[in-house]
Amino acid sequence: MLVVGAGLIGTSVALALRERGHRVWLADVSATRLRQAHELGAGDAHEGEPVDVTVVAVPPGKTARVIAERIGEGGGTVTDTASIKREVQQELRRLLGNPSESAFTSSPGLSRYVGGHPLAGRERGGPLRAHPAMFAGRAWVLTPDAQVSAESLEAARWLVTECGATPVTMTAEEHDHALAMTSHLPQIVASALASQLATQPDAVLQLVGQALRDMTRIAAADPSLWVDIATGNAGPLADAMDGLTSSLQQVAGALRSVPPDSTSVRRLIEAGGAGHSRLPGKHGGSPRSYHIVPVVVPDQPGQLARLLADAAASGANVEDLRVEHAPGLPVGLIELFVGPESAHALRTVLADRGWTLTDEATAP
Amino acid sequence: MLVVGAGLIGTSVALALRERGHRVWLADVSATRLRQAHELGAGDAHEGEPVDVTVVAVPPGKTARVIAERIGEGGGTVTDTASIKREVQQELRRLLGNPSESAFTSSPGLSRYVGGHPLAGRERGGPLRAHPAMFAGRAWVLTPDAQVSAESLEAARWLVTECGATPVTMTAEEHDHALAMTSHLPQIVASALASQLATQPDAVLQLVGQALRDMTRIAAADPSLWVDIATGNAGPLADAMDGLTSSLQQVAGALRSVPPDSTSVRRLIEAGGAGHSRLPGKHGGSPRSYHIVPVVVPDQPGQLARLLADAAASGANVEDLRVEHAPGLPVGLIELFVGPESAHALRTVLADRGWTLTDEATAP
Repeated sequence: MLVVGAGLIGTSVALALRERGHRVWLADVSATRLRQAHELGAGDAHEGEPVDVTVVAVPPGKTARVIAERIGEGGGTVTDTASIKREVQQELRRLLGNPSESAFTSSPGLSRYVGGHPLAGRERGGPLRAHPAMFAGRAWVLTPDAQVSAESLEAARWLVTECGATPVTMTAEEHDHALAMTSHLPQIVASALASQLATQPDAVLQLVGQALRDMTRIAAADPSLWVDIATGNAGPLADAMDGLTSSLQQVAGALRSVPPDSTSVRRLIEAGGAGHSRLPGKHGGSPRSYHIVPVVVPDQPGQLARLLADAAASGANVEDLRVEHAPGLPVGLIELFVGPESAHALRTVLADRGWTLTDEATAP
Repeated sequence: MLVVGAGLIGTSVALALRERGHRVWLADVSATRLRQAHELGAGDAHEGEPVDVTVVAVPPGKTARVIAERIGEGGGTVTDTASIKREVQQELRRLLGNPSESAFTSSPGLSRYVGGHPLAGRERGGPLRAHPAMFAGRAWVLTPDAQVSAESLEAARWLVTECGATPVTMTAEEHDHALAMTSHLPQIVASALASQLATQPDAVLQLVGQALRDMTRIAAADPSLWVDIATGNAGPLADAMDGLTSSLQQVAGALRSVPPDSTSVRRLIEAGGAGHSRLPGKHGGSPRSYHIVPVVVPDQPGQLARLLADAAASGANVEDLRVEHAPGLPVGLIELFVGPESAHALRTVLADRGWTLTDEATAP
């Protein structure tokens, strides 16, 4: 296996493959990153050794060129991890002298390329944040087009499975449309919201609560990466942005009418609730109902550990957990998400052990 | 003390005051809510007994009318908890026959009213979610205007402090401008983003990651409450929405140019990073740097508790904690936020005890 690009994703792929006992070669234009990845145990520097599968994990804007190079130099089945797929595919066709989408006029190189995109990552990149479990249980989209050989498609699916991820196959266009909505639009909106804070007086910043914090968490993003992604998925992203802004403009217009018209506000909040209820549950498939048990926890060392030990003693599996805090808070509110079958025992044990509980709720 | 409105906020105020040993009366148009709040120990039904301070915690659209009634019936110092302040103040002036803002033509009733807004709350309302620590350490904005007596202002500040909150004084206009940005715009945007999901194919929903989940968490909101808030703060909210949409439109326009223009994308992501870095740290004041220690945790009962017990054994105070998960994930990634002084000991102890750590980062 060869991994080109020893950043966060490439190094994590290499670590995952190494854990499964595979031989992994690494390449990177940066000697520093290459050395860091090597020291993490991700593999050895590639010096032309033959490989069965090449994973190209470089910035989206460079991906097509690097794929074309690797196809030219052998490289076995070549796949990539770029979060945009249509533009990579089109540029690759141009580079390989095969601008048509027809399998009948295909360049032989294209039969060995399978587009890929693991749905994993973090706000901050670099090999030092990599870990082998990064893809465990995640979806990993594959976007094979008509030219791909059955053998290469199989190799790409095998790679995804070896990394612990679940292959999800769709066209490059379907991928880009979906990601515009689920990933690219949220990033742009988080950045736009956070950018509004840049010019606010300090007094305003002091009143920021958990909601806006959650909504701007990803705003500390890498501008160069997002320039590549946004311009590389420009059409679908601009469409998604237009959908959002037209809905915001309609509500703003209604608010400016005299007296303010409440109908479109109500419709927006209701539609948001309907959309929110469609989000899949933690374990995929149909949403599972959790019981949420909120507990007041003093902001002192060891309290969170004590709470979770007490929760474990009740036999409940805490499936998720949310910490609410605000500046200056001497206590936090911890919400424990458990299956409905565990909620009663959990509440009883926690109350017995002196915790302050507030009423539970149910969440999809 | 009298609390009018035994919903989430009113009942929490009553519980907080009861914990401090005060006598609390309750009123609500709903006999069910009143009984629930009473059974939670929040106080007894009010039957005209004289009170020193009245807290009006009813929906924003009804707040001014209820304040005016209570001022008419005695009620001592009257304050409220509505998340909009300017419109409540103006409607109250109209109701009390005193449309001027001048202290010299003031109605005597206005000298007893201090606008208030505790910055606390949850997605879901009702007395059963109430708890006495809801305001602990939170900011509680007071918006006294020129007519308020020194005695009533003092009583309002005392109430806030008794509830464990920190009084922050500003004008009603300043409050509404700040909240439009920090609370109302985020709600509208979360709802608008989530509403886009309502019409997506299932395949798109399956690709939703943590970022969009975080950004739509509050979309399960109460439409009636938000109609009141949005129309009650229509001007500042529409201004904030316009600021956001014009920034989104500029970027969408740049993406539609041929070839897509990357400058405004880069500028937006950079401005978002700058705004994000201004968010205050957990304990208020200047942002504190945390070290983030990410740990891979198997999705099995008791693992989170074991992790936090091991963390406590290292002497580190886990100041915050974030759980990352995705549908189907057999392991989770838990990020522990600790002070820089604790990070090394924490990593050493966790590694000794067999945890898989990935590299730490620093976050404001």
